[in-house]
Order: sequence, then C-alpha cells, then structure tokens
Amino acid sequence: MKAKVHVTLKQGVLDPQGKAVENALAALGFGGVTGVRQGKVIEFELSQTDPEKAQVQVEEMCKKLLANTVIEDYAIDIAEG
Amino acid sequence: MKAKVHVTLKQGVLDPQGKAVENALAALGFGGVTGVRQGKVIEFELSQTDPEKAQVQVEEMCKKLLANTVIEDYAIDIAEG
Repeated sequence: MKAKVHVTLKQGVLDPQGKAVENALAALGFGGVTGVRQGKVIEFELSQTDPEKAQVQVEEMCKKLLANTVIEDYAIDIAEG
Repeated sequence: MKAKVHVTLKQGVLDPQGKAVENALAALGFGGVTGVRQGKVIEFELSQTDPEKAQVQVEEMCKKLLANTVIEDYAIDIAEG
C-alpha cells in the first residue's frame, strides 16, 4: 500500500516560514498573496496489505513521530499499489 | 482563489530527510516501511479571481521561488474560495 501523510500547522499557530514566503513573494512583485501556510507531505510504501490495518498503523506513526499533535494536524491518504 | 502547491523531490534525487524518517520509524518498531520521501505543501490565497491567470501566476511563483526546479517537481491546485 502507498501512504501519504499531510502535516499542517493548526489554525491559529504562527507560521514564520509561511510569512517569510509571503514576504519573499511580495518582494518579487507577486502582489495579492495572503495567508501563506507551509506544511509537509510524507510519502511511503507499506508492506501491510489490509487498508484498514494500514490506516491504523499510519495514525500511530503520525502520533508518535510524523506530527507534533500539539501544534500540527495530519491527514492520511492510503492507496493501493 | 485558493492555491495549493506541492513541491516534491524529483525521482532519483537522494532524500536524507525521508531516510531519517524511515530509520526513526524502524527504530520505533514500525517495520515494512520503505521509500519514504518528504515534500512540502504551500497554501495561500490569491486576490486574482480568474483561475487561468491564477494558474499562470502560481507557475511563475514556483519557478522563481517556491521550487528548485533542478531537483524538485511541483504540482499546482487552484480552487475557488
């Protein structure tokens, strides 16, 4: 199975990296860009072949390693292949 | 308009960050995880209201700032809202 995990900062948590991108875009002449937020995507393959078990396993990975659940949200996509 | 840009390392480019995640998952007891790749997602709002013009503008942003096209690929999602 293929897993894709999106990790994004929770609403309300300051995003200095996003702010830096916003300022850099403005400096390059790209006006009208607001609310820039930067997150990460982690993609990997799992030897687990049962989608439900894979989902549970990946949730566990998110809680233990991939996301800091105090300030980050995560979304999991499990696909065949 | 809302724009979402996914930036991922090109196939064949070494991903030490992904490798570190893979090793950490293995150390935590999550076996059967291979090919970990880490990318980033940049989300923002555009004042541009024409989807086609927005697409062109965001492509330009990717080439100039958001992605290093020598080693990274990017994918753009433009949505109403």
